[in-house]
Amino acid sequence: MPRIAPPDLSARTAAFARQQQLTKPAGSLGQLETLACTLAAMQGRDIPLPLTPAITVFAGDHGVCIEGVSAYPPEVTAAMVANFVHGGAAISVLARVNQARLEVVDVGVAADLAALPIVHAKVRAGSGNIRREAAMSRAEVRQALDVGRNAAQRAIAAGATLLIAGDMGIGNTTPSAALICHLGGHDVEAIVGRGTGVDDAGLALKRQVVSATLARVAAANLDGEALLAELGGLEIAAMAGFYLEGAAQGVPLLLDGFISTAAALAAQAIDAGVTPWLLASHCSQETGHALALATLGLAPLLDLGLRLGEGSGAAASIPLLQQAIALHAGMATFAEAGVAGKSA
Amino acid sequence: MPRIAPPDLSARTAAFARQQQLTKPAGSLGQLETLACTLAAMQGRDIPLPLTPAITVFAGDHGVCIEGVSAYPPEVTAAMVANFVHGGAAISVLARVNQARLEVVDVGVAADLAALPIVHAKVRAGSGNIRREAAMSRAEVRQALDVGRNAAQRAIAAGATLLIAGDMGIGNTTPSAALICHLGGHDVEAIVGRGTGVDDAGLALKRQVVSATLARVAAANLDGEALLAELGGLEIAAMAGFYLEGAAQGVPLLLDGFISTAAALAAQAIDAGVTPWLLASHCSQETGHALALATLGLAPLLDLGLRLGEGSGAAASIPLLQQAIALHAGMATFAEAGVAGKSA
Repeated sequence: MPRIAPPDLSARTAAFARQQQLTKPAGSLGQLETLACTLAAMQGRDIPLPLTPAITVFAGDHGVCIEGVSAYPPEVTAAMVANFVHGGAAISVLARVNQARLEVVDVGVAADLAALPIVHAKVRAGSGNIRREAAMSRAEVRQALDVGRNAAQRAIAAGATLLIAGDMGIGNTTPSAALICHLGGHDVEAIVGRGTGVDDAGLALKRQVVSATLARVAAANLDGEALLAELGGLEIAAMAGFYLEGAAQGVPLLLDGFISTAAALAAQAIDAGVTPWLLASHCSQETGHALALATLGLAPLLDLGLRLGEGSGAAASIPLLQQAIALHAGMATFAEAGVAGKSA
Repeated sequence: MPRIAPPDLSARTAAFARQQQLTKPAGSLGQLETLACTLAAMQGRDIPLPLTPAITVFAGDHGVCIEGVSAYPPEVTAAMVANFVHGGAAISVLARVNQARLEVVDVGVAADLAALPIVHAKVRAGSGNIRREAAMSRAEVRQALDVGRNAAQRAIAAGATLLIAGDMGIGNTTPSAALICHLGGHDVEAIVGRGTGVDDAGLALKRQVVSATLARVAAANLDGEALLAELGGLEIAAMAGFYLEGAAQGVPLLLDGFISTAAALAAQAIDAGVTPWLLASHCSQETGHALALATLGLAPLLDLGLRLGEGSGAAASIPLLQQAIALHAGMATFAEAGVAGKSA
């Protein structure tokens, strides 16, 4: 596994110094200033270049759906993959608007998608029912991680300087909640939410399922890969691999919502070097996402009540990153503009 | 004065119905869904068209600066106007990135700007010191309102379908705070903040100045124009006129920060018909902005700790509006995509 180097702190320091000289009260652009400095560190440049974003949506199914944890039937996973391809999904639209490369990868859909023009990398046709058994074997985890790594390599080879992983998988808030609870030490009540929209009874059931899942593995001492094997999903493991490869190649990783953040936590459990390459795009409406982001030490840019997945919240925040860079690069300094600074 | 018609509620209803049919769990795009429906109502179209944004920055000086309420010297107002023209200010950069028309209007700068290629519409060279006297006469308020109305007319004639007013005026958080306190019935402590960055002593002084200002007019029964005369600033009155004209012409108005919101409250005091045409872009870091937005019944899209003015927070949020429209227009319906809906 390639060693992950940290971002360039000297570039961050130089970028911060530049921010103090731009024609505005210091700090008055808030998070747009810190974002520019963070991207400077990731690019190793005092003045970061505009980003070329790429979005990879990983699709997989979940055996735990049989427990009744989702408001939608599992067949929707395959139908939505077709919708991505035909350009009708939210992420299709947002990729177009933001001029982002969009790739869809079948890493574990429980249907035959051979006719669709997507990346066919199915490790298995859906995960095991994590309430009662492992999601997959350790060997399958490694295959799924490699599917994600390969996707990141393709995106970077195509010119991407910002990586977004999206998810499609009916039922995947359940394994994500289990991973977040286990890795963050959080209570089930604080993390498990309504996903695509289960009702009160469905939410109570989902909490029981996650509790039972966590109890099943409580006695074991699990490393990152083993956790993904027990609690994961195929697309979640692939997203973790995508993040690990992106970080190893020094490319900023823009997280999406609840599933994406669970995958980032799993990636962190495999190699903590991934952490400084993560950026939070938005705080999802899904219960527990704010806590999961806090576990990673990340502050989101948007808080719009989104809860769709697919990478949609990350894609919607691309313009904020681009604007942060444009301001950092394009504003005049006080000296250049002949503007007086703050009074003594 | 032209009568302000309300947005088209039947278009909003149709847009809401469409949102329920798009290939996503209903509500899962959060504020982007409500935003699309609001813009549908404002455009009177079930599927709103992409927006053509225009930004007008109104500049004016403030006699109250002599009381020591700002961290920056008053000469910065004129220097920043030159910076706008030369393209080095934050709003210059954000206008370019968002392909927005940018116009700068001198409605009350206390310096000779005749050499600059801006709109010259100076009503007077800076306002009176509102702690001790009126900001301007009622006749001057009307002139400033007309300066704003004319600017909105020019922007709309140039094709604008989204109007943003920005402000430049050292000292202008003080009159804005006075207006917000008076119009919202808020305490000085809840509203007055650090502006461009006064220290603790400066903040205490500023609160005293606003309290004294409010006490000076407390006995009077003031209509909207009279309030602007007593507590306003020239750029604030022009922004109010800009909003009133935009609303009269049925164009969405995207508010910026503290000063912009004070101007919107003043516009509302003149004609409450302006209110449904207002959109909140961001919640500023300036103390009291959240409360001022709540007074207008508005929920902001961004909360990034911005406190720059110039229209910068509004400009930074343009891509969110465009994406909300693109999603609304470009996503497939469940029927079109052949995707199953929610389980019973």
